[in-house]
Amino acid sequence: MARNKREEILDVALEMFAAHGYRGTSLDTIAHRVGLTRQGVLHYFPRKENLLTAILQCREEVNREHLQAGHAHEDLPGQMAAIVAHDHQLSGLTRVYGVLLGESITHGHPAQEYFRKHYATVRERMSASFAERWGDRLPSGLTPQAAATALLALLDGMQQQWLLDHTQTDQPEIIRDVLTVLLGSPPVK
Amino acid sequence: MARNKREEILDVALEMFAAHGYRGTSLDTIAHRVGLTRQGVLHYFPRKENLLTAILQCREEVNREHLQAGHAHEDLPGQMAAIVAHDHQLSGLTRVYGVLLGESITHGHPAQEYFRKHYATVRERMSASFAERWGDRLPSGLTPQAAATALLALLDGMQQQWLLDHTQTDQPEIIRDVLTVLLGSPPVK
Repeated sequence: MARNKREEILDVALEMFAAHGYRGTSLDTIAHRVGLTRQGVLHYFPRKENLLTAILQCREEVNREHLQAGHAHEDLPGQMAAIVAHDHQLSGLTRVYGVLLGESITHGHPAQEYFRKHYATVRERMSASFAERWGDRLPSGLTPQAAATALLALLDGMQQQWLLDHTQTDQPEIIRDVLTVLLGSPPVK
Repeated sequence: MARNKREEILDVALEMFAAHGYRGTSLDTIAHRVGLTRQGVLHYFPRKENLLTAILQCREEVNREHLQAGHAHEDLPGQMAAIVAHDHQLSGLTRVYGVLLGESITHGHPAQEYFRKHYATVRERMSASFAERWGDRLPSGLTPQAAATALLALLDGMQQQWLLDHTQTDQPEIIRDVLTVLLGSPPVK
């Protein structure tokens, strides 16, 4: 049952962080919700920050698995459309990510370093992949670095809009069309 | 001096919200910082939410004034590049906006309705302006609505990246180049 209890704690933490932010949630509240003492929770997660890290890693893994499972054969606009559609299904994980991302720029936030490194890494990796495929300029005329910055920004910014207004169900198509223009690649077959 | 005290309260609130979030900041702390009692602050701002509204309106006004003052003659990519450069100069206001935007999706947040309406309004206004100029499709092939969603997302997402890493000083050029591609308009003369 240990593994299930761990997952239960994570589920509750995710829900509470999304509703009240990381700082607005106490370990005691999480413990109470899962029927443990504070010490009981600390047995699974020695520090509150470990809950944060586990949730952020979870989102990375979920997206990676989703891509590998079904959409690796698609081009980048298609892959990103699939990621956005998937994010909308997993609204709890998407919401907590948005909340933590915003909160991370407050003073001394424990997720700040994670996001800073994560963004630098993803930008570099994406930029390198564009450069490998297209050299100094994408077919659209953008540099690999500008395209990588823009792609990341689009994903975050559209997520923010969706979190405020779930009626924006056409976001997967929008991201596919926008990325097709942004890369300047031929339309999806 | 009344007006100066009001501005002093706002400055402190802005700094504290940016550092600790709206919910992480108490009226008592703000009052202490400006040398007033809690009642003294409530004289200028009857509710804590009034501070929030005043700060959000301030950012809108600053951006509008900046655009009208110096960049109204430029095309949209140039205007947006100027907005981004200006945001980087006003880092306090930009930071508090980013923090409040993220926090606004938490449960029952007082800025949630503001952001929801603000985004819907800006998206509609921008989309209508694209439609008026280009009809059903922009030169890039995007629909006015897709372009409006993407433009807003780019501004927010790039701001988030910059807030995490101030070394990204090339963002104004990136937004100009990316928007030029996104609209499909001829390059800036």
